[in-house]
Amino acid sequence: MASPAFLPELATQVVVPVAAVVGIAFAVLQWVLVSKVKLSPEPRRGDGSSAKSGAGPSEYLIEEEEGLNEHNVVVKCAEIQNAISEGATSFLFTEYKYVGLFMGIFAVLIFLFLGSVEGFSTKSQPCHYSKGKTCKPALANALFSTIAFVLGAVTSLVSGFLGMKIATYANARTTLEARKGVGKAFITAFRSGAVMGFLLAASGLFVLYIAINLFGIYYGDDWEGLYEAITGYGLGGSSMALFGRVGGGIYTKAADVGADLVGKVERNIPEDDPRNPAVIADNVGDNVGDIAGMGSDLFGSYAESSCAALVVASISSFGINHEFTPMLYPLLVSSVGIIACLITTLFATDFFEIKAVDEIEPALKKQLIISTAVMTVGIALVSWLGLPYTFTIFNFGAQKTVYNWQLFLCVAVGLWAGLVIGFVTEYYTSNAYSPVQDVADSCRTGAATNVIFGLALGYKSVIIPIFAIAFSIFLSFSLAAMYGVAVAALGMLSTIATGLAIDAYGPISDNAGGIAEMAGMSHRIRERTDALDAAGNTTAAIGKGFAIGSAALVSLALFGAFVSRAEIQTVDVLTPKVFIGLIVGAMLPYWFSAMTMKSVGSAALKMVEEVRRQFNTIPGLMEGTTKPDYATCVKISTDASIKEMIPPGALVMLTPLIVGILFGVETLSGVLAGALVSGVQIAISASNTGGAWDNAKKYIEAGASEHARTLGPKGSDPHKAAVIGDTIGDPLKDTSGPSLNILIKLMAVESLVFAPFFATHGGILFKWL
Amino acid sequence: MASPAFLPELATQVVVPVAAVVGIAFAVLQWVLVSKVKLSPEPRRGDGSSAKSGAGPSEYLIEEEEGLNEHNVVVKCAEIQNAISEGATSFLFTEYKYVGLFMGIFAVLIFLFLGSVEGFSTKSQPCHYSKGKTCKPALANALFSTIAFVLGAVTSLVSGFLGMKIATYANARTTLEARKGVGKAFITAFRSGAVMGFLLAASGLFVLYIAINLFGIYYGDDWEGLYEAITGYGLGGSSMALFGRVGGGIYTKAADVGADLVGKVERNIPEDDPRNPAVIADNVGDNVGDIAGMGSDLFGSYAESSCAALVVASISSFGINHEFTPMLYPLLVSSVGIIACLITTLFATDFFEIKAVDEIEPALKKQLIISTAVMTVGIALVSWLGLPYTFTIFNFGAQKTVYNWQLFLCVAVGLWAGLVIGFVTEYYTSNAYSPVQDVADSCRTGAATNVIFGLALGYKSVIIPIFAIAFSIFLSFSLAAMYGVAVAALGMLSTIATGLAIDAYGPISDNAGGIAEMAGMSHRIRERTDALDAAGNTTAAIGKGFAIGSAALVSLALFGAFVSRAEIQTVDVLTPKVFIGLIVGAMLPYWFSAMTMKSVGSAALKMVEEVRRQFNTIPGLMEGTTKPDYATCVKISTDASIKEMIPPGALVMLTPLIVGILFGVETLSGVLAGALVSGVQIAISASNTGGAWDNAKKYIEAGASEHARTLGPKGSDPHKAAVIGDTIGDPLKDTSGPSLNILIKLMAVESLVFAPFFATHGGILFKWL
Repeated sequence: MASPAFLPELATQVVVPVAAVVGIAFAVLQWVLVSKVKLSPEPRRGDGSSAKSGAGPSEYLIEEEEGLNEHNVVVKCAEIQNAISEGATSFLFTEYKYVGLFMGIFAVLIFLFLGSVEGFSTKSQPCHYSKGKTCKPALANALFSTIAFVLGAVTSLVSGFLGMKIATYANARTTLEARKGVGKAFITAFRSGAVMGFLLAASGLFVLYIAINLFGIYYGDDWEGLYEAITGYGLGGSSMALFGRVGGGIYTKAADVGADLVGKVERNIPEDDPRNPAVIADNVGDNVGDIAGMGSDLFGSYAESSCAALVVASISSFGINHEFTPMLYPLLVSSVGIIACLITTLFATDFFEIKAVDEIEPALKKQLIISTAVMTVGIALVSWLGLPYTFTIFNFGAQKTVYNWQLFLCVAVGLWAGLVIGFVTEYYTSNAYSPVQDVADSCRTGAATNVIFGLALGYKSVIIPIFAIAFSIFLSFSLAAMYGVAVAALGMLSTIATGLAIDAYGPISDNAGGIAEMAGMSHRIRERTDALDAAGNTTAAIGKGFAIGSAALVSLALFGAFVSRAEIQTVDVLTPKVFIGLIVGAMLPYWFSAMTMKSVGSAALKMVEEVRRQFNTIPGLMEGTTKPDYATCVKISTDASIKEMIPPGALVMLTPLIVGILFGVETLSGVLAGALVSGVQIAISASNTGGAWDNAKKYIEAGASEHARTLGPKGSDPHKAAVIGDTIGDPLKDTSGPSLNILIKLMAVESLVFAPFFATHGGILFKWL
Repeated sequence: MASPAFLPELATQVVVPVAAVVGIAFAVLQWVLVSKVKLSPEPRRGDGSSAKSGAGPSEYLIEEEEGLNEHNVVVKCAEIQNAISEGATSFLFTEYKYVGLFMGIFAVLIFLFLGSVEGFSTKSQPCHYSKGKTCKPALANALFSTIAFVLGAVTSLVSGFLGMKIATYANARTTLEARKGVGKAFITAFRSGAVMGFLLAASGLFVLYIAINLFGIYYGDDWEGLYEAITGYGLGGSSMALFGRVGGGIYTKAADVGADLVGKVERNIPEDDPRNPAVIADNVGDNVGDIAGMGSDLFGSYAESSCAALVVASISSFGINHEFTPMLYPLLVSSVGIIACLITTLFATDFFEIKAVDEIEPALKKQLIISTAVMTVGIALVSWLGLPYTFTIFNFGAQKTVYNWQLFLCVAVGLWAGLVIGFVTEYYTSNAYSPVQDVADSCRTGAATNVIFGLALGYKSVIIPIFAIAFSIFLSFSLAAMYGVAVAALGMLSTIATGLAIDAYGPISDNAGGIAEMAGMSHRIRERTDALDAAGNTTAAIGKGFAIGSAALVSLALFGAFVSRAEIQTVDVLTPKVFIGLIVGAMLPYWFSAMTMKSVGSAALKMVEEVRRQFNTIPGLMEGTTKPDYATCVKISTDASIKEMIPPGALVMLTPLIVGILFGVETLSGVLAGALVSGVQIAISASNTGGAWDNAKKYIEAGASEHARTLGPKGSDPHKAAVIGDTIGDPLKDTSGPSLNILIKLMAVESLVFAPFFATHGGILFKWL
């Protein structure tokens, strides 16, 4: 019936891996460029062989002006960087031990549950959707799902590890480059962020592509089974995100709050003071939470939306007619995404140069706009070349006819909705606009009004993003059912490399500032790194907005895929089974948030005790004559965060299993829908409330306007009220809020993977009654 | 097929109005007993003719001991009471002007929209459900719906007005009785609360009964049309609740926050100091918010759940076979409820006597337990006598067979779920248990940790109530479809008279304390009223828990009735129209809360300015030589609260209209379900967080335990942190949280009333596309 896609199978088999390899090569190139900044003192005066000799005669170091000893400064920077890098590595290795244990147990569980669907039979079975054909046994699907699960987890783990390595490799280099100028520091931080972004996007694509081809050798004609098994990849990526986001989120805030409560409040020493024993843990936390955590979160979304799209495609005309190129449309979109992001990156690093502090934020925002614009063209191209003019998509039991331009609209609406969410987030969290300024102003009447206004701001900031998400869902859902929603999510995530680059840029700049402080560098360098950091705060909020928006779309797509695989015809709110699921599901984000907030509190308390102990027992610490024991603080944060993530982690992992087994797939559908529609609101409002409080405090501290100066200076009553808001916001914006992404996505993908098991053996409570 | 109910029609026609009249008479009796406390100085010594001469020789007045001039004290009390009563009346009359305008416009709208369903035709039409019969024209339904709407609004208004009158009549009397002992004061306050409770429950029942009988004269055989028209009663009651709950909620917190910000913070004068110009407005606010507001909210729930049950019954076997007694089963349940509550009240006022301060809270809690136990027997009786052994209930297109004992279970599960919610609420908000004590303890490390712990407590407190609600929904829904859910809500509300009595008791005691302070009475009297007030705080939280729980059940029942009337077969989450409704609906509580929180802020700001102005311009005010201008503050609170309730009110009233007209009934279903499952969570968590902060502060202030004393005394750093939490909690627990009940109920009942219009003319946007 349909004309085939323009792009032949062979071309697809070339384009996808080539794009992935180009992405990885680009990441390596950025790494090489960053590594050119030397972190060892070198003879510099007189010869032209400095790190970037081409930059001309305008280069000079601030230390030279101010008479600081350059040799000492560089040595100190290297030392601090080393401590941070070691702390980060130590956290990751401890985490990996638990990840390994968890993944091992869960892999066995997946194998046993899915294997039991047909009673561990090794016999082939008739296909579900390709009528009359024979498909591979359920046992094979169980085995390959397990392998895909491990692959997803390992890919996420390796990219996260490398991203963290480069971040802790780049922070001191950014500090040193800041001596030469804000532009050079910006490029160093941004390139390092790009390493993380491209590595993660490209390796995610590459491993998925390889897995499909390798699994395909066994599965042959059975695409249903093949792509069912591939969903394990999404579950693996998402399980890793549980550790990254929740564990990392607890780590970063435990260290931050712990350091502040003793250092700033009790001992009255400034932030990032090297005398504070928790200062290294705090800097490690920035990397752990915002780089490894955010990376694993977005990787999970990317893997899940690809898997959701593939599993629906496999039972649509693409899969049934074995059209390879359209089948791999999701991977083609991601391939083009990598190229689009590559072009976009050049605008930040090569086409333009940042000369002044106030050019930083616009440059980062331009990255978002350029990548979205370039990618829109890319999607059009892929939809035209990679899809037949018309085809059918599986729509809960029926096949729906779809045109290629409709699929273009689905991907594009997701992409642009992401941009809208990003800009709305910026409006509500940047102190350049009235919402944050109003919150700052409310500090005049004390902390209470600050908190009330901040909460109200967060609630209000939900409105437009939800309309944007609802619009993209409506359009993509109407045009191409759940496949449409999955590719809309993929559209939002197609610029993930750029998104992650500007996101990772934040903590690198933050660390750079910390290192400058600790190394005792000039306050002018600190001013430059502060400017880099302030822009990073806003982009971090934008990144969180993206992450939440895409999580909502991804969860819905996974939910749709789950319903399809569980062979439920309708999820009718007006049945008791579904409705109780819906209302309990809507409660879960509250339960989960209560847990994560308590976790931060408990972990921070342990840190407070250790910091107090060191100040009380180590003589000469306050005077700066003795060094604190940084490593113990790092270890406490590490152990506490891993331990404290167990209850919320268990809630996420066990809920679908318990509900599916006891109450069955209808109630589970309700739980997933309820958790999705309720969780996305709390996640957005918590992130934005926290971001707004942080920037309201910064607004008062910076005192850049007449209005801001009437509220300051540091230490004034309004400033104290703002600090209280900022402290409350920390766990909201960095732990409980973003962790909700994991709750809604992981429950959905877990349900999807176990769908055949629940459909066969689930709902035992209702069967008994 | 079915055996008829044991109770003949005539008996039902006697039982219902008699129970209502008994309830009203009981309310009047309580009023008479309260009025026996004289509020004028009288010669007392020597003769035995004092207010309650039977109380024996142990009676003596504290003033006599302390040598205070009794005559002056009584005159002052009467003066202050007068001012509060006038302020409350002035607020109500201003409110009623706007209510009148709003109700007028909305009545016209109802008539026009419903009349247009069949093009204003006066011709009879074939019935929808009673096949082959002829029903009254849609125009008649429009007219009678409008009349029922006005009746519901007026009944709520009159009972609210009278309740407020008796509350402001009783507060000074409670103060005076406190001189004789805590037991006497308790009984005065409790009796006055009972007036409100019984008046509201009985008149709600009575007017509904009269309306059914009068409308029945016209409708005759057409019960479909009759009970369709009766739904207007629920909408009327609920619309009034919008003004009571939202307007009243803004009033009370604007006055409270305004009085505190200037009085306590800027001028450093104690709470309830007569020099504070806003002190009368603050006391008026307690009555406006917690008596008129709570009363109208629960009245709305009661009217709505009755209407939801009746409309479903009218298209079930009761209605189709014209079985009058089972048809009026909801009213019979309420009738028995009045009698059960009457017996319960005697336990507080006559069977036992309170002798010590620590007997107050147990006495109030016993009220809940006794009323629930007595009512369980009552429900069994009514279900046995008032229902046939078996019958059918309309279940979205089909008829479901139900037994009378199943309906007993439905009502009972709602009743007991209410008790569970009440006790969980108590556990999380009373400072007798560890949750609030932990929050108080977190004040050691400052306001930030207090806020984080308080938010986490609120989130956690949602878990069990949601499971209780989910369980009652599952049971009642499974047994008797939407009729079951409606009668479960009615079960929860069947003890409304007792619930309202202990709820109204709170602000009366609070006011009594304020009056004691302002009249310059002995601190020992203040201690007694404080003890009464502290118990009232907990019961207020329990009352809010009840209100939210019943709102959830009522909304679901209304939602089900809406779906039935709009003739939707399924509300499938997996259709784009429904899903976007669901996610946008889940967002509405956030939008609404942002609005109500902002409203409180703006109204409080106006109050702050006026109080500052008076302190600055009235000479001798701080010294206590001149009186402040209380009336202006009352006026400002009144005007600001009415003005500020317009945006949130418009959001509630317009959303169903806009969604129904533009997007149609499927999307509207999604919106209702989303708002319900998301709103109930925020409402519970906001109320409990606020209640916990309030009592954490009180815990530190009272210093009743070793632990509490380490945190105090008043003015210590932990206490200051606790005060910040309390101030944040004020708008959460008294405005934005409880107002969400209105959001979810009013949208549902409005959709129900307009269902025929939306089904005929709605969804124009999708019709165009």
